[in-house]
Amino acid sequence: MAKVAFIGLGVMGYPMAGHLKVKGGHEVAVYNRTFAKAEKWAAEFGGTAFRTPAEAAKDADFVFTCVGNDDDLRSVTTASDGVIEGMKPGATLIDNTTASAEVARELDAACKAKGLHFIDAPVSGGQAGAENGVLTVMCGGEEAAFEKARPVIDAYARMVGRMGEAGAGQLAKMVNQICVAGVVQGLAEAIHFGKQAGLDMEAVIEVISKGAAGSWQMDNRHKTMIAGKYDFGFAIDWMRKDLDIVLSEARRNGAKLPTTALIDQFYGDVQDMGGNRWDTSSLLARLERK
Amino acid sequence: MAKVAFIGLGVMGYPMAGHLKVKGGHEVAVYNRTFAKAEKWAAEFGGTAFRTPAEAAKDADFVFTCVGNDDDLRSVTTASDGVIEGMKPGATLIDNTTASAEVARELDAACKAKGLHFIDAPVSGGQAGAENGVLTVMCGGEEAAFEKARPVIDAYARMVGRMGEAGAGQLAKMVNQICVAGVVQGLAEAIHFGKQAGLDMEAVIEVISKGAAGSWQMDNRHKTMIAGKYDFGFAIDWMRKDLDIVLSEARRNGAKLPTTALIDQFYGDVQDMGGNRWDTSSLLARLERK
Repeated sequence: MAKVAFIGLGVMGYPMAGHLKVKGGHEVAVYNRTFAKAEKWAAEFGGTAFRTPAEAAKDADFVFTCVGNDDDLRSVTTASDGVIEGMKPGATLIDNTTASAEVARELDAACKAKGLHFIDAPVSGGQAGAENGVLTVMCGGEEAAFEKARPVIDAYARMVGRMGEAGAGQLAKMVNQICVAGVVQGLAEAIHFGKQAGLDMEAVIEVISKGAAGSWQMDNRHKTMIAGKYDFGFAIDWMRKDLDIVLSEARRNGAKLPTTALIDQFYGDVQDMGGNRWDTSSLLARLERK
Repeated sequence: MAKVAFIGLGVMGYPMAGHLKVKGGHEVAVYNRTFAKAEKWAAEFGGTAFRTPAEAAKDADFVFTCVGNDDDLRSVTTASDGVIEGMKPGATLIDNTTASAEVARELDAACKAKGLHFIDAPVSGGQAGAENGVLTVMCGGEEAAFEKARPVIDAYARMVGRMGEAGAGQLAKMVNQICVAGVVQGLAEAIHFGKQAGLDMEAVIEVISKGAAGSWQMDNRHKTMIAGKYDFGFAIDWMRKDLDIVLSEARRNGAKLPTTALIDQFYGDVQDMGGNRWDTSSLLARLERK
């Protein structure tokens, strides 16, 4: 049992903090930009809600952050009243935000300067994975700090791996999102084609899903795609944020991502269709629009 | 036990005909454009080699064809000395070629006119699937004819499904190849990105392969892709043949396949690199070329 702080109680952070309390058995202090949500969490799980990140982080051995983007992350960490100001020497900052590798390295340096440890730890598995505590967590940071943090992270994860030094967790998450984009667009084109050809797509997918065409997306999204149901899952707005990070990083490291860049544009079309909150699988809706 | 003829003893047909003989226990007559190969097969498995498709098909209850493309298929079926000329009334023609839905419907009509049954039955699973008798078979044709043929097809298959009327098997195979193209290009961009970023890609894929980014291609191709090994598997030349069929059919049925069309062009680049016989996963080699 450890003392833990959790900063950012959104659709992901709220249940993740809950698992740290209930499954992990840790003492949990929370902060959220909208204070009422922190109070709600504290009432539901039994914990303490604080008015600033620094106050929430004060006594914690492990401080978790899970916010929207690089700028939000800086404002709850390195800004005044941010967690780094409040943390005690030897404590570890674990960032679950999907952010740039650059900000991860920046926070790692800021932590080191104050005698703190840092681990970037973006997650995959979506809202359902957060609620069920079965997320995949891709970590970057020093090995010793990772080994100490791992059993704490386990409270909300099914799979936790160290990908390398600070920033490597974020880079691994980018690899993940590149794969997702390609798989989903291919699947969307395949279902679109099959429907245009008059096929019974449920029957087709039952037969092809175990072979070379198979994927997690096919297994978990084909039914809703065939039904045209997109009001759930991982929202286009977040996917575009992630792909923006991916494409910026690729510009820096020289990787060529022709279809990823194109699919990012397609997601822009889906936003124009009003699909900001639709699941990533709604690339099919774009192909079907009249 | 039935009397069977097999036309086309290439890398797929040769072992498939072998399974019909050994696993199915059928009497098998064979024909191949290069007669020596038919003789080799007959000597290896015990069967009879014939000089024309019509002769091989003469006494058969089920006639299988597995050749290169639509034109090859017409030349062994509807041309003079083709199987349809030799087949006895009530027999069934089962075509394992990956071909157009159009030629499937054409052969269905030609069979019906002669009192024969037709099933288009393209396969997925590659050379290894053929050798191990574990192919996925996507069938189109009348239900009664399919039900009679199914136990015979089972000799070389793990999964056999009826997708609809004549041509539907070919259309399902096209759906399969559209998915494969998207998954492989996404995976290639992801591995390329990861290598440029300096990640240990084996470690990353171990963590992400069970989640939303996961696919058969990731499980079965990432090691060889990371190693830059492409001298095996499903050759680019065949993939481009399949994508040509896909894109022609899409033009007819109005489906929009923007990334599939682009990936077909990328496969053209790989051919220009000398990769005609490389595995489909060699899209990564294209991203890495200098």
